[in-house]
Amino acid sequence: MKSCTEYLTFNTREHRTYVRIIEDVKKLVGQAGIREGFVLVSAMHITAGVFVNDNEQGILKDIDEWVERTAPCRKDYLHHRTGETNGDAHLKSILVHHQVIVPITGGKLDLGPWQEIFYAEFDGQRPKRLIIKALGE
Amino acid sequence: MKSCTEYLTFNTREHRTYVRIIEDVKKLVGQAGIREGFVLVSAMHITAGVFVNDNEQGILKDIDEWVERTAPCRKDYLHHRTGETNGDAHLKSILVHHQVIVPITGGKLDLGPWQEIFYAEFDGQRPKRLIIKALGE
Amino acid sequence: MKSCTEYLTFNTREHRTYVRIIEDVKKLVGQAGIREGFVLVSAMHITAGVFVNDNEQGILKDIDEWVERTAPCRKDYLHHRTGETNGDAHLKSILVHHQVIVPITGGKLDLGPWQEIFYAEFDGQRPKRLIIKALGE
Repeated sequence: MKSCTEYLTFNTREHRTYVRIIEDVKKLVGQAGIREGFVLVSAMHITAGVFVNDNEQGILKDIDEWVERTAPCRKDYLHHRTGETNGDAHLKSILVHHQVIVPITGGKLDLGPWQEIFYAEFDGQRPKRLIIKALGE
Repeated sequence: MKSCTEYLTFNTREHRTYVRIIEDVKKLVGQAGIREGFVLVSAMHITAGVFVNDNEQGILKDIDEWVERTAPCRKDYLHHRTGETNGDAHLKSILVHHQVIVPITGGKLDLGPWQEIFYAEFDGQRPKRLIIKALGE
Repeated sequence: MKSCTEYLTFNTREHRTYVRIIEDVKKLVGQAGIREGFVLVSAMHITAGVFVNDNEQGILKDIDEWVERTAPCRKDYLHHRTGETNGDAHLKSILVHHQVIVPITGGKLDLGPWQEIFYAEFDGQRPKRLIIKALGE
């Protein structure tokens, strides 16, 4: 069994944004020399997400509008009694999920034709980490 | 370590429907001869999902009504400027998630009494693929 | 390859509640002697969830209020024709997802500073099971 682990750090200019990371995942799988396995892509913060969807600017804006409608910014979250202001970002993280598993087959990411991988930042403008970990043979 | 991979193709009559696929997953795990491991069940399209829930027709209709209420069909998604009409299906895919991992213990799917596996089609009537990949020993 | 499996049983006093389970997951990983791998934490019922978020009482109440707003208790779910009354709990399970994968690196859970693991009970006051399964080397 082989494993390989890498960490990415984001420090986005925007409060909320979506970063394409499929090339980083491909690179790690190549370095790991894994032919058959799984690669986990998982946010290490509770105010961020990871999802698989289309690399199309319109749908990324639709997703952003939808997460804000479904888990809106509000002043009155109880979490804000701690001094935080990011209650909505915690809910958005749960809504889109904070991780995906990508299958590796024949040494490559076994994704469909339009599947891309995105890091979803819901409370940016500070350093945030993500783990990519591959396991297989 | 052993691995085994299979692909299913769906071409549903309905635009939106839910297909029970637990027997396909059991079959692959049996063929793979894996006693302890994980099996990933993952949609290969960005307008479909996979979930674990009850094989009961009422709840499947409730789920369908709920995904439509939470991520509704609308004309005005920005994604539609590309000529597509399925913006809602992208959002529904993120809402229910596009994949599950099923544990394998003693050669069997280690699920609870009512847990079944469903492929959720949110934009059907054309060929769509799903991957089942087992890893273990 | 090594694997290790454990089951937890919950029988919560409350109908809906959130139980911190990170110590159980750490314990299993320690017992398994796995240095590099994945541990799956997955509800075995279709009316429960598992999520990674902050161990802060305010945000846990915000999450509870949000899941109820997004997938509300209602009398008129079709599922209730079977005699059940927990249609909302099925939807809440899909909303937050029923499982997470935690990476194991150097023998430890490879989580970010505020990431904790919670079992989300959406229809309690009876025995419900959860599986923790680690795989690696």
